[in-house]
Amino acid sequence: MKSHGRDDILLGNGDDAAVIKPPDDAAIVVSMDTLVSGVHFPENTSASDVAFKSIMVNLSDMAAMGAQPSCLLLSLTLPDSNESWLIDFANQFNQLCNEYDLELIGGDTTHGPLSITVQVFGYANSETVFKRSNAQAGDLICVTGFLGDAATGLRLLNDKTREESESFDYFIARLNRPVARVEFSNAICEYTCCAIDVSDGLLADLGHICDQSNVGAQLRLEDIPVSDVLKNFSAEINWDDVLCAGDDYELCFTIKPESLEFVKATAKDMELNVSVVGEITASKNIEVYDQSGRQITFGHAGFQHF
Amino acid sequence: MKSHGRDDILLGNGDDAAVIKPPDDAAIVVSMDTLVSGVHFPENTSASDVAFKSIMVNLSDMAAMGAQPSCLLLSLTLPDSNESWLIDFANQFNQLCNEYDLELIGGDTTHGPLSITVQVFGYANSETVFKRSNAQAGDLICVTGFLGDAATGLRLLNDKTREESESFDYFIARLNRPVARVEFSNAICEYTCCAIDVSDGLLADLGHICDQSNVGAQLRLEDIPVSDVLKNFSAEINWDDVLCAGDDYELCFTIKPESLEFVKATAKDMELNVSVVGEITASKNIEVYDQSGRQITFGHAGFQHF
Repeated sequence: MKSHGRDDILLGNGDDAAVIKPPDDAAIVVSMDTLVSGVHFPENTSASDVAFKSIMVNLSDMAAMGAQPSCLLLSLTLPDSNESWLIDFANQFNQLCNEYDLELIGGDTTHGPLSITVQVFGYANSETVFKRSNAQAGDLICVTGFLGDAATGLRLLNDKTREESESFDYFIARLNRPVARVEFSNAICEYTCCAIDVSDGLLADLGHICDQSNVGAQLRLEDIPVSDVLKNFSAEINWDDVLCAGDDYELCFTIKPESLEFVKATAKDMELNVSVVGEITASKNIEVYDQSGRQITFGHAGFQHF
Repeated sequence: MKSHGRDDILLGNGDDAAVIKPPDDAAIVVSMDTLVSGVHFPENTSASDVAFKSIMVNLSDMAAMGAQPSCLLLSLTLPDSNESWLIDFANQFNQLCNEYDLELIGGDTTHGPLSITVQVFGYANSETVFKRSNAQAGDLICVTGFLGDAATGLRLLNDKTREESESFDYFIARLNRPVARVEFSNAICEYTCCAIDVSDGLLADLGHICDQSNVGAQLRLEDIPVSDVLKNFSAEINWDDVLCAGDDYELCFTIKPESLEFVKATAKDMELNVSVVGEITASKNIEVYDQSGRQITFGHAGFQHF
């Protein structure tokens, strides 16, 4: 009984449910994320961008677990039967599925206010899966890519006085087209055991790691990765956007100091920026210090869901 | 690495994703259904009824595959933070999870127009899973329970001139609290290999079986199971409600004639009504005949999604 491109999919879309058979010894990693129009993306976001983001936020969860994505289910709630919207959505969705060797195995299409729920499956070794509870005092805290770009994009979208520019396009692309760090995560899976994706802001997401690992963290402001575009965009960096705002979907992970060389070399091979931003501590607090050693405080900790 | 009640759940709610390890040799059966307020249930439906139905429509998919449900993910989109609604929803949700030995392993909570997406996992033998494409000419077509009650409930809810009555309560309960035929499905899994749950109406859902199996069907109107409450409710049975309307979540399945005795005995043990409503034919059409042998036609085939 096998009807599809991937060996692990025994029965795909078109029945009451799909049937999959994971590789022997693999544990199955599952996550589900919903994007609601007007909440998780502006109402005028293109169908293609919505498709892109709805897959990527889920792949980002796979990256945060060290899992190899395999297949997904899609529940699409649409306000009306808009064919051109659906075609654009499906084209982008299929393109990413091909790119990541993902198979769409089921889901639901319903009538209602626009929202997209994607549920993704991946495979991992159950002993090495990245858990939020695995951080230990002395671990280095690393972050991929750059933070704050997506928040800047959202701010610009809402700013009626903005002028179009190359920077604008960059920030909007970073907001609408985050790239999940799946390949990198899979490559370093033997060198880390604790990660989270930065969806709610670094301080909030690192807070989840610290809570579940019963540890704290010290961060150095000058080591937080900020893109050149963002540095050049205004006279002063908005650190709230960088540390407390979400949607960057970069990977925050911890490693033993002796793993740094391998992690750096892997990142270099993939042309991915990876920064060591601080250390895990035994103190239970998250503290941020500037270059002169002064502690910095922030008004709020990340995106509030309600 | 095991943190939960079920042996197959290695990591439950609270990380970027959940991790499960199915029993050796089991294939994983997955389905996902979304219920949107005002579309799949009236806007004033109680939180408890919404929770009940959101689990049951997914368990019904497991029943339709012959799978044993194991765990689920819930994505809840809520218009505001209504604590009493959430408590009622959670209480009913947890109660059903306990009853079916299901574990909630993750999901998402978002802000937006009320909708509920549940994704359920089950286990089955990959060789005996019920597929829509497995029907063969000569098979008997069976249906559990009674059809048309849920549609009558929906009709009554929308009828401002109705009077409250015991019948009314029965029909509303059948609409809001369908019972998935999981236990029965699991008990007969060696005696059937083809099933679907009646969510869009018997003619439409049997149509999916016929399409995918490349067969047809002959149904006898007098054998279609209609509850005594519905028979007594009006002078004439509304066959559109019974055959073309959805939401009953009964099981339609096919068996070889020699399996009928076992299936009937199993149903009797479970105090479940099971009716043989017709036969699969080689003709590719679905035909319905009344007691005098005249063929009946219907204006539309089941619930239209758009």
